[in-house]
Amino acid sequence: MISYFTFIYGVIIISLVVIAYLVKYTFAQDKGTDDMQKISNYIEEGAMAFIKRQYKTIAALSIVTLIIIVICNYFGNSSKGSGTSLSLSLRIGIAFITGAFCSALSGYIGMYMAVNSNIRAAAGAKKGLNSALQIALRGGAVTGLAVTALSLLGVSSLFLIYGGYSGNDILIKEAPSLIVGFGFGASFVALFAQLGGGIYTKAADVGADLVGKVEAGIPEDDPRNPAVIADLVGDNVGDCAGRGADLFESTAAENIGAMIIGVSLYPVFGWKGIVFPLIARAFGIIASIIGIFTVKVKNDTDDPMKALKSGFCITSLINLIILFFVVKTMLSGTLPDGTKVNYIFLYGCAVVGIFLSYIFVIVTDYYTSINHKPVKNIANSSETGAATNIITGLSVGMQSTALPVIFISLCIFIAYKLSALALPNISNAGFYGTAIATMGMLSTCTYILAMDTFGPITDNAGGITEMSGAPEEIRIITDRLDACGNTTKALTKGYAVGSAALATFLLFSSYLDEVKKILGMPSDSWFAVDIGKPEVFISGFVGVMLVFLFSSTAISAVGKAAQYVILEVRRQFKEIPGIMEGKSKPDYASCVDIVTKGALKEMVLPGILVILTPIIIGVLLGKEAAAGFLMITTIAGVIMALFLNNGGGAWDNAKKLIELGEHGGKNSESHKASVVGDTVGDPFKDTAGPSLHVLIKLVSTLTLVFVALFS
Amino acid sequence: MISYFTFIYGVIIISLVVIAYLVKYTFAQDKGTDDMQKISNYIEEGAMAFIKRQYKTIAALSIVTLIIIVICNYFGNSSKGSGTSLSLSLRIGIAFITGAFCSALSGYIGMYMAVNSNIRAAAGAKKGLNSALQIALRGGAVTGLAVTALSLLGVSSLFLIYGGYSGNDILIKEAPSLIVGFGFGASFVALFAQLGGGIYTKAADVGADLVGKVEAGIPEDDPRNPAVIADLVGDNVGDCAGRGADLFESTAAENIGAMIIGVSLYPVFGWKGIVFPLIARAFGIIASIIGIFTVKVKNDTDDPMKALKSGFCITSLINLIILFFVVKTMLSGTLPDGTKVNYIFLYGCAVVGIFLSYIFVIVTDYYTSINHKPVKNIANSSETGAATNIITGLSVGMQSTALPVIFISLCIFIAYKLSALALPNISNAGFYGTAIATMGMLSTCTYILAMDTFGPITDNAGGITEMSGAPEEIRIITDRLDACGNTTKALTKGYAVGSAALATFLLFSSYLDEVKKILGMPSDSWFAVDIGKPEVFISGFVGVMLVFLFSSTAISAVGKAAQYVILEVRRQFKEIPGIMEGKSKPDYASCVDIVTKGALKEMVLPGILVILTPIIIGVLLGKEAAAGFLMITTIAGVIMALFLNNGGGAWDNAKKLIELGEHGGKNSESHKASVVGDTVGDPFKDTAGPSLHVLIKLVSTLTLVFVALFS
Repeated sequence: MISYFTFIYGVIIISLVVIAYLVKYTFAQDKGTDDMQKISNYIEEGAMAFIKRQYKTIAALSIVTLIIIVICNYFGNSSKGSGTSLSLSLRIGIAFITGAFCSALSGYIGMYMAVNSNIRAAAGAKKGLNSALQIALRGGAVTGLAVTALSLLGVSSLFLIYGGYSGNDILIKEAPSLIVGFGFGASFVALFAQLGGGIYTKAADVGADLVGKVEAGIPEDDPRNPAVIADLVGDNVGDCAGRGADLFESTAAENIGAMIIGVSLYPVFGWKGIVFPLIARAFGIIASIIGIFTVKVKNDTDDPMKALKSGFCITSLINLIILFFVVKTMLSGTLPDGTKVNYIFLYGCAVVGIFLSYIFVIVTDYYTSINHKPVKNIANSSETGAATNIITGLSVGMQSTALPVIFISLCIFIAYKLSALALPNISNAGFYGTAIATMGMLSTCTYILAMDTFGPITDNAGGITEMSGAPEEIRIITDRLDACGNTTKALTKGYAVGSAALATFLLFSSYLDEVKKILGMPSDSWFAVDIGKPEVFISGFVGVMLVFLFSSTAISAVGKAAQYVILEVRRQFKEIPGIMEGKSKPDYASCVDIVTKGALKEMVLPGILVILTPIIIGVLLGKEAAAGFLMITTIAGVIMALFLNNGGGAWDNAKKLIELGEHGGKNSESHKASVVGDTVGDPFKDTAGPSLHVLIKLVSTLTLVFVALFS
Repeated sequence: MISYFTFIYGVIIISLVVIAYLVKYTFAQDKGTDDMQKISNYIEEGAMAFIKRQYKTIAALSIVTLIIIVICNYFGNSSKGSGTSLSLSLRIGIAFITGAFCSALSGYIGMYMAVNSNIRAAAGAKKGLNSALQIALRGGAVTGLAVTALSLLGVSSLFLIYGGYSGNDILIKEAPSLIVGFGFGASFVALFAQLGGGIYTKAADVGADLVGKVEAGIPEDDPRNPAVIADLVGDNVGDCAGRGADLFESTAAENIGAMIIGVSLYPVFGWKGIVFPLIARAFGIIASIIGIFTVKVKNDTDDPMKALKSGFCITSLINLIILFFVVKTMLSGTLPDGTKVNYIFLYGCAVVGIFLSYIFVIVTDYYTSINHKPVKNIANSSETGAATNIITGLSVGMQSTALPVIFISLCIFIAYKLSALALPNISNAGFYGTAIATMGMLSTCTYILAMDTFGPITDNAGGITEMSGAPEEIRIITDRLDACGNTTKALTKGYAVGSAALATFLLFSSYLDEVKKILGMPSDSWFAVDIGKPEVFISGFVGVMLVFLFSSTAISAVGKAAQYVILEVRRQFKEIPGIMEGKSKPDYASCVDIVTKGALKEMVLPGILVILTPIIIGVLLGKEAAAGFLMITTIAGVIMALFLNNGGGAWDNAKKLIELGEHGGKNSESHKASVVGDTVGDPFKDTAGPSLHVLIKLVSTLTLVFVALFS
């Protein structure tokens, strides 16, 4: 027991050391010309101002929620577990606030590193592609490591504090249920971080484009546009802070869910079944560190994407090997009838998970990259105008949901059946299989996250290079990295949706375990969620509707916030003389300020909608209905997210394809049509889609925390 | 027993008499000028040519399906019911082919009446608004009456032939299950009719617009455009033939489903519980006839929509009163414990259904009419270009799903609970309540269908008036009727989705009844569909995905078929000299021919997709998984259809609003942006959306017919 515990903390310390090294490495790099630094400083200031204000709003919302959680669990949980109901509800509350804090911290670290790496990557491009690539990836790796290490630290420590390592059976089995607050806190913050950041980034982008490109006729990233800095800030607060918080809560929620299922298998695996997810995660961090350090390009003409993919393969391969030994060591328990568990089947589940992450990378690439039919079709349809571009894009987005769903379904089914084979006659066995598969898929999470943060860093590096008027050869390098970053961002989104889908069953099962505990049912009994009951059916109906309504509010929030930007830019053009001639500088800060206010205002409604609906369902229609809601909302959320992410990504690259010279190239009618598609796709792929990832898991952790309230 | 039977046939005879009167009335009207007749003849020829070819394709597909049905039921049903398995499977097969034939006939009648009423309505406009309104509505009423009377005739006669009126308990209880083939046949034909017609109408529309308006710069409905006749034909084959078949299969499937649930309540209501749906339908026809004859406008300045709405209110009111007595007479059975059924609660269910049809009319009107915020917002956002128009439209469409879902959920819940109160301790009681509610909602079906067919008739009348160069005062009248027809079309779609949603539970329950019969479970036992089982969850996942994939294929089919039109029109402009100067006539027929071929080719893939998926699910994953598939596909299908229909309708009217002079009026930049939105909305609201209505019910009838195959 002690050795596992030591190992986890050992890995956390290793992570900290590596983080320290990477930070030192990044900060030691050249900061480029004065012009570059000036722009970078603007971006940093804007991003920090946003996050400060956003965190204030989130903190206020969190404190209200904390009080509600403690009160609800105080009255709801009185009949359950060790200790008084006050101590139980306080422990859930503490977990919540810890989770919220860590999630916020993850977002902050992601953004801090991004705004400090972007300029160095831009400057590094002078030395060549490899130098810029290393800086951007290593800057991103800090975020990846910080997020996963923080998640591991938080869950492990709470588990320790709540008696998980005490050797006391009752405390050990109870601890995971008390940590759910941590997952909920993480999801809670992630929702608002992703929503607020997503609205910010696209409102600034759309607003800057509409008033700058369309009305004033100046190019993108032109320093005369007052909203241009807000646009660059957006990449950091949306993609870095948002996605950081998103993947933090993914790893937290899925770890905790898997631990709760582990509790129900306590008779077979004992303590090891509960901590298996933590150990798998710890090894995953090690594998990812190795993977990150292998990434390298030799020449400036090498494909940076190839190098990143090879690093991903190495990370996956190491995990594939390590997980075999981890499963063998930890999951070779003894069945009630005395026979040994066939751990090979359980290892099969982990393989299935790793396999699924590959599939998602391939399918996402197929639907969003410029080399394949879908994007080519959209570009082609731009020749007949914006309408056909939109129709084709929507059609591609909808179609892109098919293969992922088929593969997720297959993986869930196989993992479920393999695990049931390994653990015959145990009712929860199948669910644990999907938990192991999820751990397999998430084992590469650190690496994926590094690749993801790489995206906005290179995007900003490109912007800084452009705005500071750097020479052509540098811009070619940053442009190539930027294109590569677009792909990695799309792949990460696919990965995030895939893992959320795979985790459905494990989160669902952990919810059912809690329900059984509250109802006093034995943990190996089966709780049916019968969709033939009207309350369950209705919950499902409302769940799918919620996904549509939430997407609608998120998308229209971007439009509303963009309106504020448009009005402000128009005002500046009118009131500050000499802007257009480049004689006087626009007031960047006031634009940043206005988008910040707008985004924060607009994020509250969709956020509250998502939080209140499941609670209302549970309170009015009961526990079984809430379970149905959970499952069907997840199904719809995953599919809608795939539609939005892939559709948006495909439109974006269809525009890129035309800009590369096809169908008439830049400034042709086709190009104008493709710009319409890209603009429509922006709130799809960067606001609504990623927020849906969080929604899916938030619904799970939320129902877990509030289950005691449900009738 | 005889008296009910006599009544049903009496109503059918009355319907035939009224149809004869209306046909005579319509055909006695003036056919207008030679120019008008020429255009009308082109339309009629094109429509007939399409339907002839389409029906050939559908006939071939139907025969293949018939053989599969007979074979499957021969081997699957061997253990069930009276008679040999050969006789059983043949009876299902005969029902299938009868249903398919009647559905096709309904579509044909709808189209035939439409192409003959359009010109007379155009000519009637000379005499004033009321004259044109009467002709268009009465032409539409022929379709409405023919469709519902045919459905009643088919179901009642098969019920009679299969022993439903024989007094033999075994035969009576078995008959409804054998008629499911009728419902499936109807859905089968409706799917292809709606898909083929929907693809045709929008391919012609989009193709004609893109090459005519955009490339050649000639106005809409300009006789120089070779695709203009194909466009007008499209309204008839899509809206009339398609919707006719759609609502035919709705009434058929929902009647049969309700009868199957009636069987499970045989101990309480006896024979009356099974034929209640038929009697309710028969009275609904009478009420609708009265309603139709009350519609009238006094002056040319009156609002025709108001007159139509008042007719709808009268029809609803009559139904409200009649249904009370029908429920009282037929559903006052005796419970097993000897107490009387409280029929007031059951009447309450019917009231809920009628109420829901009202709600749908109001909500659809709110989201798609030019008088309310959603459409105004879209028009407003057109000022900043096509991209913001599209974003707002998508957002409105998604948002428009919320209220309908909440009201459907409420209605299902209330009807379920009321019925459970009326029939305590009977497991299927709640389902019967939703069946009664559905019967309540569908009681106005004839009237709604008349209003729906009114839409394309007035649309064509407007087109004919425009193309024949009729004087301004006539065009004002047909324009006003056309705008009114747009609204009725939107309302009918809302109604069709609403009834499909309300009917989910009844169709689901009838499927479960079949499953219980096959498994030898008592009819009052409960069959749980547990979404916590991986196979059920996966089925749901695939079901939602199917809805997205189907929408994608339907939408992209329009794009592909439109390409054929574009190429042909370009060819004619190039090869036939003097078209543009109006000196020589374009070859309308070849355009019609090409769209026909294109639409028929493109309808096969989405059609087969929908038919095969549930069968594969059932065969591979079993009966419970198929039930989960059924429920969750319905949920997603209803919501997606709402999104597509309302979004499309809102875009359409946002364009109309701008054309009326707001935001710069016709030919302004806002107008151009709104045309993009309208074009995107076209395949949404006229192809994918309506096809989804059929999909929802097809999945139900299909699983009912093939349940014997499922593992």
